[in-house]
Amino acid sequence: MYDIAIVGTGPAGVSAALTAKNRNKDILLLGRKDLSEKVSKSHRVLNYPGLPDIAGEDLVKAMRDHLDQMGIEITAEKVISIYAMGDYFAIQCAREMFEASSVIIATGVMPGKMLPGEEEYLGRGVSYCVTCDAALYKGKEATVLGYSPKEEEEAEFLTEIANRVYYVPVYQEEVSFSAANIEVIRGAAKEIKRRDDKSVLVLDKQEIVSDIVFVLRDAVSPGQLVPGLETEGAHIKTGRDMSTSISGLFAAGDITGTPYQDAKSVGEGNVAALSAVSYLAQKVKKQP
Amino acid sequence: MYDIAIVGTGPAGVSAALTAKNRNKDILLLGRKDLSEKVSKSHRVLNYPGLPDIAGEDLVKAMRDHLDQMGIEITAEKVISIYAMGDYFAIQCAREMFEASSVIIATGVMPGKMLPGEEEYLGRGVSYCVTCDAALYKGKEATVLGYSPKEEEEAEFLTEIANRVYYVPVYQEEVSFSAANIEVIRGAAKEIKRRDDKSVLVLDKQEIVSDIVFVLRDAVSPGQLVPGLETEGAHIKTGRDMSTSISGLFAAGDITGTPYQDAKSVGEGNVAALSAVSYLAQKVKKQP
Repeated sequence: MYDIAIVGTGPAGVSAALTAKNRNKDILLLGRKDLSEKVSKSHRVLNYPGLPDIAGEDLVKAMRDHLDQMGIEITAEKVISIYAMGDYFAIQCAREMFEASSVIIATGVMPGKMLPGEEEYLGRGVSYCVTCDAALYKGKEATVLGYSPKEEEEAEFLTEIANRVYYVPVYQEEVSFSAANIEVIRGAAKEIKRRDDKSVLVLDKQEIVSDIVFVLRDAVSPGQLVPGLETEGAHIKTGRDMSTSISGLFAAGDITGTPYQDAKSVGEGNVAALSAVSYLAQKVKKQP
Repeated sequence: MYDIAIVGTGPAGVSAALTAKNRNKDILLLGRKDLSEKVSKSHRVLNYPGLPDIAGEDLVKAMRDHLDQMGIEITAEKVISIYAMGDYFAIQCAREMFEASSVIIATGVMPGKMLPGEEEYLGRGVSYCVTCDAALYKGKEATVLGYSPKEEEEAEFLTEIANRVYYVPVYQEEVSFSAANIEVIRGAAKEIKRRDDKSVLVLDKQEIVSDIVFVLRDAVSPGQLVPGLETEGAHIKTGRDMSTSISGLFAAGDITGTPYQDAKSVGEGNVAALSAVSYLAQKVKKQP
């Protein structure tokens, strides 16, 4: 029985692991040996304090080195389901089952149904993060595929940097922008292709050719991962201490909601770990 | 008029500044050129992801380099009060006043508790600002309760105006002044009283009677800093998006509550900055 199982090896999971280990807890870190595809495919991260203008892959390497230096190992198992058993949690993986007194979910937000070409060109003409990558498209042309009205703000910000922005809403609500260099195009996205060093977003009736396609969505179902867990859309509902609706279960990082930022994830991982430590201390006190 | 004023240069303030600047906002960063005494005095920081086992002073240096690399300057002014003016904020400093559309408070948490009488007599025998109020005590007697060695400079300046100055250090380091009209008195401060139009600083073994008691700490209590702000003890009450009870005012870092951790502060600074960016975008939309 582990003290704390941490599911996910992005910045939130790594941060939680470092803090929990620092507090002498027996931890199980479930994830990928290469930590996070999303982070390693970020071109440059400009706003992770203390590591200025760092390539995503270098940030991943720095975190990987930090885990190694603290003697934290990664168990590369895919988590299928997490069951709250009352006094502990059963973590069902593809090949094995683990038990832990508390759990921190830091799986990130998985893009649900990907477009053909989306995964293939991620980091090479497709991006999930305007804040992260906008600066690379200064004076260029960009396409934004927005899955909810809140992505309009990202597109609006992009108009300050890119020369021209095409905005494709994947929803019915009316869209309006104040900037002059943005055009709203309606259509059903079918595929992303690369052609002549350009990214092509294929819609049902036309194609949009530009330098980058930003795919902005939040789609994951944490409720499927943890039966009975209270969610808010694609996110797990958490308190300021990263607690969830299930006692002993905490969440951190993208899965708790926007903004999807490394610094935010790292902060939440830290808080979730310390909340789990507190939870374990309370549990010990309650035992006869 | 700045877009965002950020008050404080610890990990939360630095993180907020980096993200706000990255979003092309016109920012004012108010704090210390050496960022954070608290962090630089940390012996080793073990759980700030990506910078393993780092000395506090090296973490401060890494953050300072990051600010420099992004071209962010620090305005070394002590903030006395922040007033919500409806559509903008007025930030009253010792020597100057600034205006900003939104504010992020990242001042850290006030060490210890307020003294009995401190709040009651503030503005009537108690002051937080030598630069602001020294002129009122020309030729009179003043007491300075200094919470860190850097307050000695304020006391030294006060000797040029007041007739006599009593300096009570709330720290162990040796204190010496060049002026002849200042006396260092050691003791544990217990209370501030008013008696016969004089301010009385009660120490464990004696009383100091003078015309004014200057209480000089790194951070003042949030309720004093921002009149009308909803607080929870020494902390500012915040939502998951780091919003406070005042629209356009955000908070991040130790001042929002425990745990007092660099990673948590960095995460909250990041979220506060993006929430301020959203607030500004909404504000623009609402204007005719």
